[in-house]
Amino acid sequence: MRLHQGILQEGYNQYHANKHDEHSNPHGIINLGTSENKLCFDLLQKRLMRPDMLHIEPAFLQYPDWKGHSFLREEVSKFLSDYCRSPKPLKPENVVVMNGCGSLFSALAATLCDPEAKFTIFHNVTLPYYSEFHVALQLYFYLYFIVLVQPTGSDVRPFQLTVEKLENSLKEAKKEGLNIKALILLNPHNPLGEVYSSEELISFLQFAKMHKLHVIVDEIYMLSVFNEADTFRSVLSLDGLPDPQRTHVMWGVSKDFAMAGMRVGMVYSENRDLVQALDQLGCFHGVPGPTQYLMAQLLRDRDWLNSEFLPENRHRLREAHSFMIEELKKLDIPFLHRSAGFFIWADLSKYLKEKTFAEELSLWRCFLKHKVLLSCGQAFSCVSPGWFRIIFTDRLHKLQLGLTITLIHISKQHSSDPCN
Amino acid sequence: MRLHQGILQEGYNQYHANKHDEHSNPHGIINLGTSENKLCFDLLQKRLMRPDMLHIEPAFLQYPDWKGHSFLREEVSKFLSDYCRSPKPLKPENVVVMNGCGSLFSALAATLCDPEAKFTIFHNVTLPYYSEFHVALQLYFYLYFIVLVQPTGSDVRPFQLTVEKLENSLKEAKKEGLNIKALILLNPHNPLGEVYSSEELISFLQFAKMHKLHVIVDEIYMLSVFNEADTFRSVLSLDGLPDPQRTHVMWGVSKDFAMAGMRVGMVYSENRDLVQALDQLGCFHGVPGPTQYLMAQLLRDRDWLNSEFLPENRHRLREAHSFMIEELKKLDIPFLHRSAGFFIWADLSKYLKEKTFAEELSLWRCFLKHKVLLSCGQAFSCVSPGWFRIIFTDRLHKLQLGLTITLIHISKQHSSDPCN
Repeated sequence: MRLHQGILQEGYNQYHANKHDEHSNPHGIINLGTSENKLCFDLLQKRLMRPDMLHIEPAFLQYPDWKGHSFLREEVSKFLSDYCRSPKPLKPENVVVMNGCGSLFSALAATLCDPEAKFTIFHNVTLPYYSEFHVALQLYFYLYFIVLVQPTGSDVRPFQLTVEKLENSLKEAKKEGLNIKALILLNPHNPLGEVYSSEELISFLQFAKMHKLHVIVDEIYMLSVFNEADTFRSVLSLDGLPDPQRTHVMWGVSKDFAMAGMRVGMVYSENRDLVQALDQLGCFHGVPGPTQYLMAQLLRDRDWLNSEFLPENRHRLREAHSFMIEELKKLDIPFLHRSAGFFIWADLSKYLKEKTFAEELSLWRCFLKHKVLLSCGQAFSCVSPGWFRIIFTDRLHKLQLGLTITLIHISKQHSSDPCN
Repeated sequence: MRLHQGILQEGYNQYHANKHDEHSNPHGIINLGTSENKLCFDLLQKRLMRPDMLHIEPAFLQYPDWKGHSFLREEVSKFLSDYCRSPKPLKPENVVVMNGCGSLFSALAATLCDPEAKFTIFHNVTLPYYSEFHVALQLYFYLYFIVLVQPTGSDVRPFQLTVEKLENSLKEAKKEGLNIKALILLNPHNPLGEVYSSEELISFLQFAKMHKLHVIVDEIYMLSVFNEADTFRSVLSLDGLPDPQRTHVMWGVSKDFAMAGMRVGMVYSENRDLVQALDQLGCFHGVPGPTQYLMAQLLRDRDWLNSEFLPENRHRLREAHSFMIEELKKLDIPFLHRSAGFFIWADLSKYLKEKTFAEELSLWRCFLKHKVLLSCGQAFSCVSPGWFRIIFTDRLHKLQLGLTITLIHISKQHSSDPCN
């Protein structure tokens, strides 16, 4: 695990030292590895540079009251009430805002898990799983992630999450003496692009309730579902949660508002003790006053959100996604056809000389040598080698450069004359 | 320790629920407890609302490269070179920028101290010491602070820090089996307002070198020295540090730029391993892209800094300080006459019925009942009861309201008819 993390990090270092730019560095590395939406910077720039954004009150410059009421908390609760379609208005006092979901995960680990234990345990049940904060969290908390690896004959979708799998994994973890405290659910899922039905959601929440597990429901891609036919259901839209005191919903502006640089994430929880404990960590993970103002302005601008940004963003996501899947089809590459998130989970195993993770890494390196940064399956602890997450949320000519040319090139070359 | 922290927190909660405002809440609580400079919001507002501040580039909205070069790192190194009067230009790659000095302390604790130990130890040698992050840091790291309490007959100043005291405390700590890793030096000192001479600084640094201790030199009030006669010397201005690999200088915009709400702090260190380790924590403690831009603009605007903000700020600090010490003199209250920081360290022990910390707390409560929030000595682990830190960096009529009227009232009442 550590090994490939180091190698992947090396890929990001290479990218940062040699970023592609069509004018200044046309032979630089194209990043189809970081899950960012680069399709809407024009819309955001236009909105964020309107004069109403330039406003500084003395209160923004003073040390914020992380534990008290704030206008951002207020706006977030209204925003989540509307966009999660909550049956009743959500309460501002149940909202915690921090500088990104990484901080929230870290703070949740600190508060939900036993602080005395060397290994505080998270039960990560989705396969493949979302590992971005894995190493960073380990730095702070020695988290131990479990990856569940039981494919069953009854799966109707590839990599399907089922209560049966959850039950088996929990049993196995207990056998190993692990003290499982919480379950992380990703909906929409990264990197699968999967969206759970309300029946599935409820069954997972009931499983958690039965075993007294906290559930962190990460809905950070909830507004990036770009096919009208796919209905996303937030757990906050459910009529009555099975275990509201142990259900905590996460969202942020990094993905759905394409502003990872803004560092704003939030958790909604009815658990007062948890909210108060998280608030204690505001001094390390709070959002600066001026950023709070800016975000509140944006969240309350429903006209802009509903008439401009969100429909146009969905349109561009759909367009870029279509382009990418057509290219994959041309190359005869199998992939999961989903309509959420910024990525396609594709099976490039046909380019592996043998079905091993060492070969997967070698293919990943070959991409990098050809100036394309991707994420390979082992970064998500995928069980079968050859799966890659391909980000499609960049301008079309970059995608074309990054994928088509390189993939075609590699597909021709890799089978006969591998690049390493 | 825990007990009074809880009580003081209760004071802040009361303040946040009932803040004084001359128009909307004239009978609310006046905060002379939080070390914030409220004298220059007009200057800051004017500067921060100039059109050059409203600028958003796509790069600001993308996930920042915490480990790489950035324009803010560049500006910080130039700024520190100039304002710390470094003999040679400081290097951008030695700069770490985080969301406030609280995060930097926490990150330094995580990187300098043994992550496996339950108690990672900081040697805090100044008395009274700066305890703001104490409880918060404990949440994360189980820090254990040592307070040194050996007044000696040879002190030429009250609460003086000397190498002799450092030596004694280190011996005592070792006797207790404590593994001392680092020394925190505050210069200018909070709450004493003390500024160390270069000879003192060098002697402390040499002590640390001899015992292989890291030194975190917190210079967060370096530009808030308001008497021309007092010369502040940054350790970065010294010709050659005794142990550069173990000397780490901290600064931030919360105090000197009166912008605690902006959440921007920085460390300068020649220790590459340390800088790289701190950079790993950017994902939890990084500064948002738009805030980075805003701060870089401000740091490079030397015209505004040198001709407007800094001289006017010093002038206002001096004026407010003079007002406050005159009032203290009228009331015959002893205090340390210093010219740095936002506070006066005053001896109110004459209002104590007996010289105990319980009585000190009761006086503190009495102030709060009369709608003035102060910090009492035990919050800084002061050894003799009755010392209070009084913040003077608010508008004069507030200081008048907060101090004069209330103190006179209490001085009359407390001796004959204590309020609790």
